[in-house]
Amino acid sequence: MVQPSALPTEQHLAPAAVFDWLDEAAALRAGAGLTRTLRSRPAEDPVLDLASNDYLGLVHHPAVTRAAADAALRWGGGATGSRLVTGTTALHTELEAELAEFCGAEAALVFSSGYAANLAALTALTDPDTLIVSDAYNHASLIDGCRLSRAAVHRAPHDDPDAVREVLAARTHRRALVVSDTVFSVDGNAARLPELSAAARAHGAALLVDDAHGLGVLGAGGRGALAAAGLAGQPDTVATVTLSKSLGSQGGAVLGPRRVIDHLVETARTFIFDTGLAPAAVGAALGALRLLRAEPHRADRAREVARTLSARLTAAGLRASAPDAAVVSVRAPGPEAAVAWAADCRSAGLAVGCFRPPSVPDGVSRLRLTARGDLTERQIAEAVRIVTATAPVGA
Amino acid sequence: MVQPSALPTEQHLAPAAVFDWLDEAAALRAGAGLTRTLRSRPAEDPVLDLASNDYLGLVHHPAVTRAAADAALRWGGGATGSRLVTGTTALHTELEAELAEFCGAEAALVFSSGYAANLAALTALTDPDTLIVSDAYNHASLIDGCRLSRAAVHRAPHDDPDAVREVLAARTHRRALVVSDTVFSVDGNAARLPELSAAARAHGAALLVDDAHGLGVLGAGGRGALAAAGLAGQPDTVATVTLSKSLGSQGGAVLGPRRVIDHLVETARTFIFDTGLAPAAVGAALGALRLLRAEPHRADRAREVARTLSARLTAAGLRASAPDAAVVSVRAPGPEAAVAWAADCRSAGLAVGCFRPPSVPDGVSRLRLTARGDLTERQIAEAVRIVTATAPVGA
Repeated sequence: MVQPSALPTEQHLAPAAVFDWLDEAAALRAGAGLTRTLRSRPAEDPVLDLASNDYLGLVHHPAVTRAAADAALRWGGGATGSRLVTGTTALHTELEAELAEFCGAEAALVFSSGYAANLAALTALTDPDTLIVSDAYNHASLIDGCRLSRAAVHRAPHDDPDAVREVLAARTHRRALVVSDTVFSVDGNAARLPELSAAARAHGAALLVDDAHGLGVLGAGGRGALAAAGLAGQPDTVATVTLSKSLGSQGGAVLGPRRVIDHLVETARTFIFDTGLAPAAVGAALGALRLLRAEPHRADRAREVARTLSARLTAAGLRASAPDAAVVSVRAPGPEAAVAWAADCRSAGLAVGCFRPPSVPDGVSRLRLTARGDLTERQIAEAVRIVTATAPVGA
Repeated sequence: MVQPSALPTEQHLAPAAVFDWLDEAAALRAGAGLTRTLRSRPAEDPVLDLASNDYLGLVHHPAVTRAAADAALRWGGGATGSRLVTGTTALHTELEAELAEFCGAEAALVFSSGYAANLAALTALTDPDTLIVSDAYNHASLIDGCRLSRAAVHRAPHDDPDAVREVLAARTHRRALVVSDTVFSVDGNAARLPELSAAARAHGAALLVDDAHGLGVLGAGGRGALAAAGLAGQPDTVATVTLSKSLGSQGGAVLGPRRVIDHLVETARTFIFDTGLAPAAVGAALGALRLLRAEPHRADRAREVARTLSARLTAAGLRASAPDAAVVSVRAPGPEAAVAWAADCRSAGLAVGCFRPPSVPDGVSRLRLTARGDLTERQIAEAVRIVTATAPVGA
């Protein structure tokens, strides 16, 4: 965050001046070209969406929206309280059982967001005598979870299981937890989970992975990155997932051994002191999960669309990532060029993500395209045409 | 959290033994009688609910559930992305405008939970040169927000504006932020906001209040604790609220000066890196807000039910709190007695909250009754009868 320089204690500010420093920070950001703006979208958006995380294109599927609506009408607009008081409905229990079974885990626990699930796992599964070894490119919620924990935190180089092994071997802490995204959001590349797991096991460490971008896309029928790596249901391995991407809803979950889930119920503050997930969101996620189980090809299709997008953009001379899941990134020559490129795409009717410093861990500005599994051949061709036609010099 | 004692580094644990320490922690909790269990409730629950936070009894109101269902059907099961990418719908913008207007704030920003809103406000409105002065009884999410911030944190005695004033006067940090719940959840007592605000203003500090238990209950028509204290719209004052209590939905919001909201959009990690609130939850909150605006007596009624409950329980010889909002607590002689009392109430058909160490800041075990505004005279009489009939010796 950009901060104005330090000045003496401001004991005698007028009330109207108390937040003046925010304007100074805003001016610094504006000067650096870093201003963000909220853009509100209409219900029927004519723009072709390759910017969302709706990987399977289920967010508007009647099996999802109807399930959400039915749940709201039957169970109410909210969960009414924290999960341990009145906020656990039979619908929550159903979702937890079906999610665990689908992913091959012993048990699951649903949270109001993936962010909350990550804070819970990192704080409850560590103690002051734990060393967390966290991939340098991990999501903000994992980083915040590390900061909230009482553990020591080592930031390991990105995608480097050997480095993880060395840090674990040298540790003096009783326990250790290796933490990684399964699919890194910005570039769409996957972690090497078998190697990470082997490194953790060589030194008695647990493994925690955030499968936000893997669930619904990786593994047979979208069962997630742990299933794809043959690590589902392992006694030393825990996954967090989100219900807000492939499952077209809101919320998150932790999946793992029953005793891990029981421990979270007892100790995780973002579980105990938060209102339970709204019934509509529980219903939507259940609807999506059941649909995915009935139509497992949806996961394959999302990966296929990603490979097609990447191949065609590469063939057109652009620097597109080789996708491991349903995200394709395309390098831009710099942050201003990336912003202009994304804006030009939008003017041409295509929404794409635009990532630039400080939101990218490697400092590389790029477009981020979501390879939605429901994109038609015509939409894919249109997306490739627009991204290519609007590409800046040097892209 | 109960922790087993420290032992040497466990570098050679078998995978199946990595989480053995959780079982040890569970055994310690069980020995201390502190085991928590999730109880799942059915859609049609015959139990009389005085345990939820559904203060106005709106969670099943058709104006709320129908709005949730309609929003899901029209806008989809989820928001599809983070608020800055694709997760801001026109419905989010409507809710933010109406919430701000209702509470008399310049602007509002909606989050996926009140927890996330509190983390955002505390991290984004402070810096390393800020002193946070936080009431000792503040909610867990405010405490976690303090820990996540880079600021110095002073835990002030509960409900003590003079102590706050002294700490502020002695500070060496450039900035300061005074933080308090408006209504403390466990006992239902209110903070003295005029005095807190005066203390903050005497020393150039900002004031942040969590109005989770005030919105919908306090102030004219339920406009919240700041409105009740004449502090709505002040340039040095920020409120967080939840959509999951009086408004019968899910989510949270920050309300304050426009530049505070703009700053959160630019810098708050739980805003930037979280999926937007699901449309159904946005719709439910909007439905409740519009209903409350049309029927402002609902707020008065919740406070009236609380006063009635408290008076009758006191008349029956129990130690009930004098309610400032819609929560009435009743002291129990100890933690085991409180648990048994709550269980006896449930067996008699009444759900009440049961708070005991370590979840109570003052170490006092009690029942917590929610004075829902839609309780009938008959239900109030029944609740008083059951709580009184099941009271343990010494209550």
